Amino acid sequence: MKMASFLPIVLQFFCCISAIEAIPIFLPPPSLLQSKPSLKSNVSYKTHFFPQVLDHFTFVPQSYKLFQQKYLTNSEYWGGPSTKAPIFVYAGNEGKIEWFAENTGFMFDIAPKFRALLVFIEHRFYGESLPFGKDSSNSSATLGYLSSQQALADYATLILSLKKNLSAEDCPVVVFGGSYGGMLAAWFRLKYPHIVLGALSSSAPILQFDDLTPLTSFYDTVSKAYKDSSNNCFDVIKKSWDELILLGSEEEGLLKICRNFRACKTASSVYSVRNWLWEAFIYTTMVNYPMKANFLKPLPANPVKEMCRIIDSYPPEADTLTKVFAAASLYFNYSGTEKCFEFEKRRDPHGLSGWNWQACTEMVMPMSCSEQSMFPPDNYNYTEKAEGCMLEFGVQPRRHWITTEFGGHRIGMVLRRFGSNIIFSNGMLDPWSGGGVLKNISDRIVALVTEKGAHHLDLRFATKEDPDWLIEQRRQEVEIIQSWLDQYYLDLQR
Amino acid sequence: MKMASFLPIVLQFFCCISAIEAIPIFLPPPSLLQSKPSLKSNVSYKTHFFPQVLDHFTFVPQSYKLFQQKYLTNSEYWGGPSTKAPIFVYAGNEGKIEWFAENTGFMFDIAPKFRALLVFIEHRFYGESLPFGKDSSNSSATLGYLSSQQALADYATLILSLKKNLSAEDCPVVVFGGSYGGMLAAWFRLKYPHIVLGALSSSAPILQFDDLTPLTSFYDTVSKAYKDSSNNCFDVIKKSWDELILLGSEEEGLLKICRNFRACKTASSVYSVRNWLWEAFIYTTMVNYPMKANFLKPLPANPVKEMCRIIDSYPPEADTLTKVFAAASLYFNYSGTEKCFEFEKRRDPHGLSGWNWQACTEMVMPMSCSEQSMFPPDNYNYTEKAEGCMLEFGVQPRRHWITTEFGGHRIGMVLRRFGSNIIFSNGMLDPWSGGGVLKNISDRIVALVTEKGAHHLDLRFATKEDPDWLIEQRRQEVEIIQSWLDQYYLDLQR
Repeated sequence: MKMASFLPIVLQFFCCISAIEAIPIFLPPPSLLQSKPSLKSNVSYKTHFFPQVLDHFTFVPQSYKLFQQKYLTNSEYWGGPSTKAPIFVYAGNEGKIEWFAENTGFMFDIAPKFRALLVFIEHRFYGESLPFGKDSSNSSATLGYLSSQQALADYATLILSLKKNLSAEDCPVVVFGGSYGGMLAAWFRLKYPHIVLGALSSSAPILQFDDLTPLTSFYDTVSKAYKDSSNNCFDVIKKSWDELILLGSEEEGLLKICRNFRACKTASSVYSVRNWLWEAFIYTTMVNYPMKANFLKPLPANPVKEMCRIIDSYPPEADTLTKVFAAASLYFNYSGTEKCFEFEKRRDPHGLSGWNWQACTEMVMPMSCSEQSMFPPDNYNYTEKAEGCMLEFGVQPRRHWITTEFGGHRIGMVLRRFGSNIIFSNGMLDPWSGGGVLKNISDRIVALVTEKGAHHLDLRFATKEDPDWLIEQRRQEVEIIQSWLDQYYLDLQR
Repeated sequence: MKMASFLPIVLQFFCCISAIEAIPIFLPPPSLLQSKPSLKSNVSYKTHFFPQVLDHFTFVPQSYKLFQQKYLTNSEYWGGPSTKAPIFVYAGNEGKIEWFAENTGFMFDIAPKFRALLVFIEHRFYGESLPFGKDSSNSSATLGYLSSQQALADYATLILSLKKNLSAEDCPVVVFGGSYGGMLAAWFRLKYPHIVLGALSSSAPILQFDDLTPLTSFYDTVSKAYKDSSNNCFDVIKKSWDELILLGSEEEGLLKICRNFRACKTASSVYSVRNWLWEAFIYTTMVNYPMKANFLKPLPANPVKEMCRIIDSYPPEADTLTKVFAAASLYFNYSGTEKCFEFEKRRDPHGLSGWNWQACTEMVMPMSCSEQSMFPPDNYNYTEKAEGCMLEFGVQPRRHWITTEFGGHRIGMVLRRFGSNIIFSNGMLDPWSGGGVLKNISDRIVALVTEKGAHHLDLRFATKEDPDWLIEQRRQEVEIIQSWLDQYYLDLQR
């Protein structure tokens, strides 16, 4: 699961627990990003760079260093400053911004109705927004400037500058984001209400910290998806881990696995193969969409069901590992173009590795696997996590910093009487949904939950296959955003 | 006016304009603080130190450095965790914390009624909370960690730790602050609603930034106080500046002034004398209380009126400078104990000098003097200000950072639909009141304005001389704070 880390080999020696808790789940597998993303014809944008300050919160000489922050704009639908038409901003997350722009079709879909300017801002230390160029990830002395608060301050600074340059001071800003970007979107509204009127925060696990969410939630949700598809499927996957580790612990067994799993190159550890399988099951659950899609990978509709169909198609007595390999191949090779699979030392050509750093500093999201899950049971071990971070980056996590800075405990009670204009949308199939806000907090901070939705499905382009509940969810989102804008224009006239 | 700066001599060569705009108005004159503050018998506290992290928002190795942050507690009235009794926190501002504790008697006065724990937290880089010990002010490499956001994060971190240690997680926190501390209190509620239930923000000029408040507001308010006392008083002061500079520009004239003004040591520049006078008029206006008090200095009730009475007691033909010196002596020597006056190189024994740094980085508060004021007319010159900061500290101000981070533009519109539980209290005699929030923003963010109040008078101990309007203002504050707590306890039961 450590495919985007700096030191995958070191990390592979970590035991199972560490591998679980440090999963950079938000990240698309780098293997996907090596291929050109498929460009929808209606995704077009101009690319810009903004001279951004390195450190907003201190004034030491180094703080003043500038870097070029990338952002994309599409103004073809924009009503312009004279009509005070809105600005829709995507709060970039842990990857290159083009990828998020191309997978947030919802903003393009609704821009004409709102006559909105679209702006997609890249997160510092990802894509091309590298404060220290190719040296950005060299050490904690450079990576240390990668943090969510600095990112929010970047967005605030860039948006104010952009509005001023466009003489668009009166144009309201609505922020959108999915996953970590959704967390940033919600926090952006909470911390910078003077800059952003409202936030659509999709599949944002802002409660995946401390003990706010049961630690087993993530893996239980993954497991439930498979169990709901078929008990046999669940059982096969559950028992595969022991078989895999037992066989792969011996050199000959590992060789056999690699041969059967069509490894491009023999793995040095069976845990690499385990992580590869694990990734397939987790990511497929995240993108368990009811229609064919190509977000993390090209996949058919209801891919978890399809995986289970593959497993169930084998006779009971067939080899377990053969079954799980066949299932995982759906994720890794639905297009049928892969001749072999890489289990180790995957390339990270798009500068995505920053998430491991974030998980080792502020994004400390404790997780464990219960006895009931289809993964090997494990308890969360913070000490081990911290040691791993010290080993990998020479950094100590600040375990409770996110809840100190952004809250989370008693969120309903706190925000019921504070704040407004946030939509938390979640699909209950998404393993991250357990860490999301699933109930209305007030009539101004609302939760839109779809039982059959997965990871920020609502942010994707509308398709002809969209089920009614998805159409309805997006309709509600549009209606709520419209209500924020209506109120804004009324207030402006007062 | 630069009495708390690092390099007073360099700064004295700045022209009048710079002197105006960089005034560390919040600061008590260091001369006051050389004397032991008078301890009220009901001000008692225990002193503690908290290991605080140097930089909350980055993760470079240096960020992890710890320093000892001072805080004071008084638990004699506290109901304790079992009754979920509240915690009242004072958000320390730019000076040693004891001084603020001793001048915020309101918290002591109301603690018994609320059965509140009192906590006074010292602001980093002031008093004894020096991250780099005696080297803290050496250069921008150390001073760079002095910022309002770091201070708020300090408070958040300390409060959560304290509550945990006291098993007081359920005890609601209300924050109090005056002047810069009042700005911090309001911002603390806005940025950390999950930590603080409400804020009493007294005399907090959160709108003294950018062009939010007329630049002449501060000096116009000072001038009005004198004019309202007597036209002659206003005229005498207004014409004194030209006479002073004219006379003092020649060596002999300066010697004469110093003699007449009872200088302990001859000043090297007439501007030092001018600043001394200026200080007397400004600070006296800030503490223009309707009762005898000893906040910045011991002063009689209605000291501006008293100053004008002194000026008016001279025959019209008497020497102007003699009149203004006599008036200023009320401020500097009401106790009658000063044998002579220091105009330059005043000591800064209490580590208060940080405000000049803050004014050169984020606290950029533009001010000017109109033709109608009693001060020499001047326009605001940002370029000159910035050059001065570069010269003094080697640092560039971030001119619009405060409004980027905390807002201010259209504050009513933004906060009408966002946020709650803030009282902005202001006294209209206070020169800072122009930069304050003077109208209710909503029924949850309210302004309490007293026509005859001065700089955070409401935060002082009740006295037998308190006028009815002051008693009523404090009564309202108590009532509103009680309503926040009532709501909190109700919510807790839901």
